[in-house]
Amino acid sequence: MTRAELQLLRSLRDKEHREELGLYAVEGEKIVSELVAAGHPFERIYATAEWKGQRTHEISEPEMARVSHFPTPSTVFAIGRIRRVEPAPGELDRGLTLALDGVQDPGNVGTILRIADWFGLDRVVLSPACADVHSPKVIQASMGSFARVRTYVADLGTALAGTNAPVIGCELGGRDVHDIPALDHAVIVIGSEGGGLAAGTRSRLSYSVTIPRVGAAESLNAAVAAAIMCDNLRRAAGKAK
Amino acid sequence: MTRAELQLLRSLRDKEHREELGLYAVEGEKIVSELVAAGHPFERIYATAEWKGQRTHEISEPEMARVSHFPTPSTVFAIGRIRRVEPAPGELDRGLTLALDGVQDPGNVGTILRIADWFGLDRVVLSPACADVHSPKVIQASMGSFARVRTYVADLGTALAGTNAPVIGCELGGRDVHDIPALDHAVIVIGSEGGGLAAGTRSRLSYSVTIPRVGAAESLNAAVAAAIMCDNLRRAAGKAK
Repeated sequence: MTRAELQLLRSLRDKEHREELGLYAVEGEKIVSELVAAGHPFERIYATAEWKGQRTHEISEPEMARVSHFPTPSTVFAIGRIRRVEPAPGELDRGLTLALDGVQDPGNVGTILRIADWFGLDRVVLSPACADVHSPKVIQASMGSFARVRTYVADLGTALAGTNAPVIGCELGGRDVHDIPALDHAVIVIGSEGGGLAAGTRSRLSYSVTIPRVGAAESLNAAVAAAIMCDNLRRAAGKAK
Repeated sequence: MTRAELQLLRSLRDKEHREELGLYAVEGEKIVSELVAAGHPFERIYATAEWKGQRTHEISEPEMARVSHFPTPSTVFAIGRIRRVEPAPGELDRGLTLALDGVQDPGNVGTILRIADWFGLDRVVLSPACADVHSPKVIQASMGSFARVRTYVADLGTALAGTNAPVIGCELGGRDVHDIPALDHAVIVIGSEGGGLAAGTRSRLSYSVTIPRVGAAESLNAAVAAAIMCDNLRRAAGKAK
């Protein structure tokens, strides 16, 4: 392994280098196994002799220690190619979309991918202000759902302007989420915990819904709100059948 | 501030020292403000001259730097007393209880306190294998709900054996959570993501419920499952009125 290759792999922990190179890294036995099992297409899989799974390049333990983003290196370090596409025209008209407006915490974004996967949503659209979906923390928190959920990064004001599906915001002061109708096609918009929905996003909403509060907490975390929205959507659709 | 006092404050980052001393620490402007606003009774509040809020002891910045659990110290460090009580006999018969069985991630436990606060639950009972409810990460993630939610640490097998309220486990293969009846009194049990419910807990269940899955994710995170359970409980109760 050349010094340049080592440096390239190490550099993928930073978003700017990922964007520049069009590559991202996934490290750790559990998450790489999950993604490989889900049929995720990696470009290269670097592994030490100890790794039992699939690999394209065998590297030594000292090399892995230099490549690794972890204080305690794992035995496998996989590289994927970032395919950045916008949603196709009319794509958001069909099925169920979760749109994330400035959800910055990578753990939350990863958990939301897992939620979208559990509830069988068709896609997740992230605003550019969200945590980078190719960051190690997002992929780790998604627990393999990163491989199964279609994701896009797009300006939400623009992406939502073009859709015929109802665009439903999750925020305080809306209709009761328990009364949500059965919807085969919809976009659910989840805002950041601190800032709520951006003005350019809010102007695209068909209406807002609210998760009824009984107690005193000021807010729910974004992943929790997304999950409750999805569960109510699926409940309403199931009841209608 | 004496050397012994400094060492005592620093030591509170470790669970064994918290247990031994019966004290816990909360650090950071935002979380201390939230807890003070919620009327949380601190024993002592150490703060530098910069801190605008309530304090009992002013300390210098170098002292704070030595006390702090953070790489970048905040301006305030508050100390509370751990009051460890078991649920009173019959207490779980009344109202809504969330019981956590081995939920080890402190972020999840804190998020669950926030969920319990949002949905106005009466209490949260944690098994001894859960993350320590007095750990800085739990308190931080609770975003002030730590001050408002009554918590207990208790062996769940024992605590659940004595209650007349239905004990409802959240696990795969149960009844559809969307069909949950209106319940004024119930205990909802959430297991760990990896291990599910312990045998001693499962033997106390009245029945299990499941969050219907449409897609492919293997599981939902414990906080997400707790939130969906609480939302369905509140929905069912609201519908019955």
